[in-house]
Amino acid sequence: MQSDRPLILVCNDDGITAPGLRNLIRVMNDLGEVVVVAPDGPQSGMGHAITINGILRCDQVTIEEGPQTEYSVSGTPVDCVKLAVNVVLDRRPDLVVSGINHGSNSSINVIYSGTMSAAMEGCLEGIPSVGFSLCDYSWDANFAPALPYVKQIAQKVLDQGLPRGVCLNVNIPKYRDQAYRGVKTVRQCIGNWEEEFDQRTDPRRRNYYWLTGKFVKYDEGGDTDEDALDDYYLSIVPVKSDLTDHAQVRTMQAWQFDQNN
Amino acid sequence: MQSDRPLILVCNDDGITAPGLRNLIRVMNDLGEVVVVAPDGPQSGMGHAITINGILRCDQVTIEEGPQTEYSVSGTPVDCVKLAVNVVLDRRPDLVVSGINHGSNSSINVIYSGTMSAAMEGCLEGIPSVGFSLCDYSWDANFAPALPYVKQIAQKVLDQGLPRGVCLNVNIPKYRDQAYRGVKTVRQCIGNWEEEFDQRTDPRRRNYYWLTGKFVKYDEGGDTDEDALDDYYLSIVPVKSDLTDHAQVRTMQAWQFDQNN
Repeated sequence: MQSDRPLILVCNDDGITAPGLRNLIRVMNDLGEVVVVAPDGPQSGMGHAITINGILRCDQVTIEEGPQTEYSVSGTPVDCVKLAVNVVLDRRPDLVVSGINHGSNSSINVIYSGTMSAAMEGCLEGIPSVGFSLCDYSWDANFAPALPYVKQIAQKVLDQGLPRGVCLNVNIPKYRDQAYRGVKTVRQCIGNWEEEFDQRTDPRRRNYYWLTGKFVKYDEGGDTDEDALDDYYLSIVPVKSDLTDHAQVRTMQAWQFDQNN
Repeated sequence: MQSDRPLILVCNDDGITAPGLRNLIRVMNDLGEVVVVAPDGPQSGMGHAITINGILRCDQVTIEEGPQTEYSVSGTPVDCVKLAVNVVLDRRPDLVVSGINHGSNSSINVIYSGTMSAAMEGCLEGIPSVGFSLCDYSWDANFAPALPYVKQIAQKVLDQGLPRGVCLNVNIPKYRDQAYRGVKTVRQCIGNWEEEFDQRTDPRRRNYYWLTGKFVKYDEGGDTDEDALDDYYLSIVPVKSDLTDHAQVRTMQAWQFDQNN
């Protein structure tokens, strides 16, 4: 009977032992047959990286008891989805879920996020895909109050699907001991990281750097994921794999070029 | 007098010694003051990865004689742009160029490309940014016939700028011993990689995998970057940092959620 239930692929970027992933697995076990294919260690900030100059390991493991099947992969979140779809699974998943990330992937973080890149890769494979992130970096973060929403969003996507080329970026406010106010579907906030590199000197007197910085919001629209999160709503941003700025295509078609410049 | 010329930051993902980068530097030296900040080795397929769990090195080097200043970085293409803007340069660049990549970054490759992620990072910093790629993986590829176009496109962007949040993805057909037909500004082709993992056994009898696959075009529109390249035109796709599918936001605002499910 197992095979009549939806097949759900679960991935993340914090690694296969991360509490956010373990919470996501427990919710998905209620909705379908779960296969976990996740990195063997932290892969935060890996964006849409893939492993093309090295080899990949993919081994079945048991991290926790449960109905799910689990595989640990030596590569990036995107490698995990590619291996799952092409090697591990004997049928196409009905849903790809990624996360729950320890930390925000709202606004421009979507571009750097391994969690969202796994969801995007599922989307590129034509599978409805959702990335979930909790705006709390702590390993001991409280995921429980968000889980009813995670379940409903995943169920909705299982029931209704998503347009080809679109996946969902779901962010969840850090829990503040009161019920979340609900869910808002919104646009990606315009913002950026302002970096400050921390320069240090190693024991051999060579300089090195640590990347650090703070997020800065440039957007006063009020209708963005950052605004929803500030108002204690979960935010959903539908994210496209077509990056074309179609208006700018029309503008630039007037540009003239000459081979003999 | 140097400082009155435009400041041009040059980056890539094939590493600081790659012929594509060396060609790009020579063209840019005609247009402005050039600073190169590039990875110390190959970083293809790194997407928008950043180094957050390790340290970064950034050392001034001399790879070739010339007016340019060069820095070699131990990290990803995006790390290079962040280090350049925040540590290396004493003023904001007027232009970021990335490439010339050895291999195509057309269609969905834009998402996996370190070359394009460097351009996107420049764009996120508010700097007009262009990624260039030649559809020829060979280290000995013939870049020369494309260079007049590379120069004109860069000059045009220096003169006219680009809208905030938009960078350019320029792809150049492999040279076939006849003049390129020109330049077309087009949209990103819908396509994907169909992976085939090459499974092998190591000397200790453990399985491992190499990622391989072929690009498949799903798009019959005729007005895409793949079509322009097939017709022996250079393609330009304006690429956005806002990934929101705005139409889907409106559709999904009707979805109802309940905290007690």
